[in-house]
Amino acid sequence: MHGPLIKYINDYATTPLTGSEVELIKNTFVPKRIRKKQYFLQEGEVCKYFAFIVKGAMRQYSVDDKGAEHIVQLSIENWWAVDRESFVMLTPSVYNIDAWEDTEALLTTRADILNLYNQIPALVEMARKMDEKHSIANQRRLNASISFPAEKRYSDFANCYPEFLQRFPQHIIASYLGITKETLSRIRKQMLKK
Amino acid sequence: MHGPLIKYINDYATTPLTGSEVELIKNTFVPKRIRKKQYFLQEGEVCKYFAFIVKGAMRQYSVDDKGAEHIVQLSIENWWAVDRESFVMLTPSVYNIDAWEDTEALLTTRADILNLYNQIPALVEMARKMDEKHSIANQRRLNASISFPAEKRYSDFANCYPEFLQRFPQHIIASYLGITKETLSRIRKQMLKK
Repeated sequence: MHGPLIKYINDYATTPLTGSEVELIKNTFVPKRIRKKQYFLQEGEVCKYFAFIVKGAMRQYSVDDKGAEHIVQLSIENWWAVDRESFVMLTPSVYNIDAWEDTEALLTTRADILNLYNQIPALVEMARKMDEKHSIANQRRLNASISFPAEKRYSDFANCYPEFLQRFPQHIIASYLGITKETLSRIRKQMLKK
Repeated sequence: MHGPLIKYINDYATTPLTGSEVELIKNTFVPKRIRKKQYFLQEGEVCKYFAFIVKGAMRQYSVDDKGAEHIVQLSIENWWAVDRESFVMLTPSVYNIDAWEDTEALLTTRADILNLYNQIPALVEMARKMDEKHSIANQRRLNASISFPAEKRYSDFANCYPEFLQRFPQHIIASYLGITKETLSRIRKQMLKK
């Protein structure tokens, strides 16, 4: 089950993991099945685990005063699920993370990952590059959310993450983009006409 | 002039920088004055430098088809100015970065910073923690932009970054928050009444 994670780390690292490093990772990341609709994190809890998704799909969202869900992150295979703020600062999370499909994940705690950073240089390298990528993607999304019309936000999303359109329904995609599902439906119809 | 940067790195690091590490940093980060309204980066250029702001204020923004500016980032003393995507991927930037006030910055190139990472563990630690903090702040901002009403976005911003309200005018703050300046003006009047 750890194969995809080992491959993921090696894809980022300049020098591949040694045999003993692979063993260390296998002993540190604990497999966990999360059934569809089951929570990985609920609002108000501290996010104790960082999850690497081996199979399945998860969503992270906040719920506003009126009970509406706002999707902040969608994750599928080879993505991570975590509320970074709560995980790092040990503060109660303002988010929920649940499984949108039956999910198999590999979990680690903050103490364990910090311990691994001290022992495995490739993991530090991966974390740095992953954060860099994440930071770039977030900046794009922020820029899109404050400056692009809904049409462009949707078409950029569809180009960048075509697989997400297959895995998540329209109302989830609309929420991720910060638009209503009616607007998304209108945009999709217009795009089909073109 | 390097004092604030050395302090910044030491504040993040578990072990303070050694004398030779400090020298290495001083030799790598080059002082640069950027006059008010002068560009640090123009759309279409590759962002060659990562800037640590010692004094002054900068803004990063995109310009849409209609010529409207959209602020994606504001930076003052002890912040960084860079288009991360362009800097890391060497792609032409879609942003402009200019000085909002006369600015004194310390600049480094990608090659130089990667070289420093190999020599100064405290710098790697700082980069990791800074990315973590950045990732958390970005997630908050994203969540705010898709799920909070304009009033809450403004009050959160005012609480988190009170100094920014003194340094940047209302139309810049409004653009950063993705709202019109008329909306911001209305919100501020309502908040004063309370």
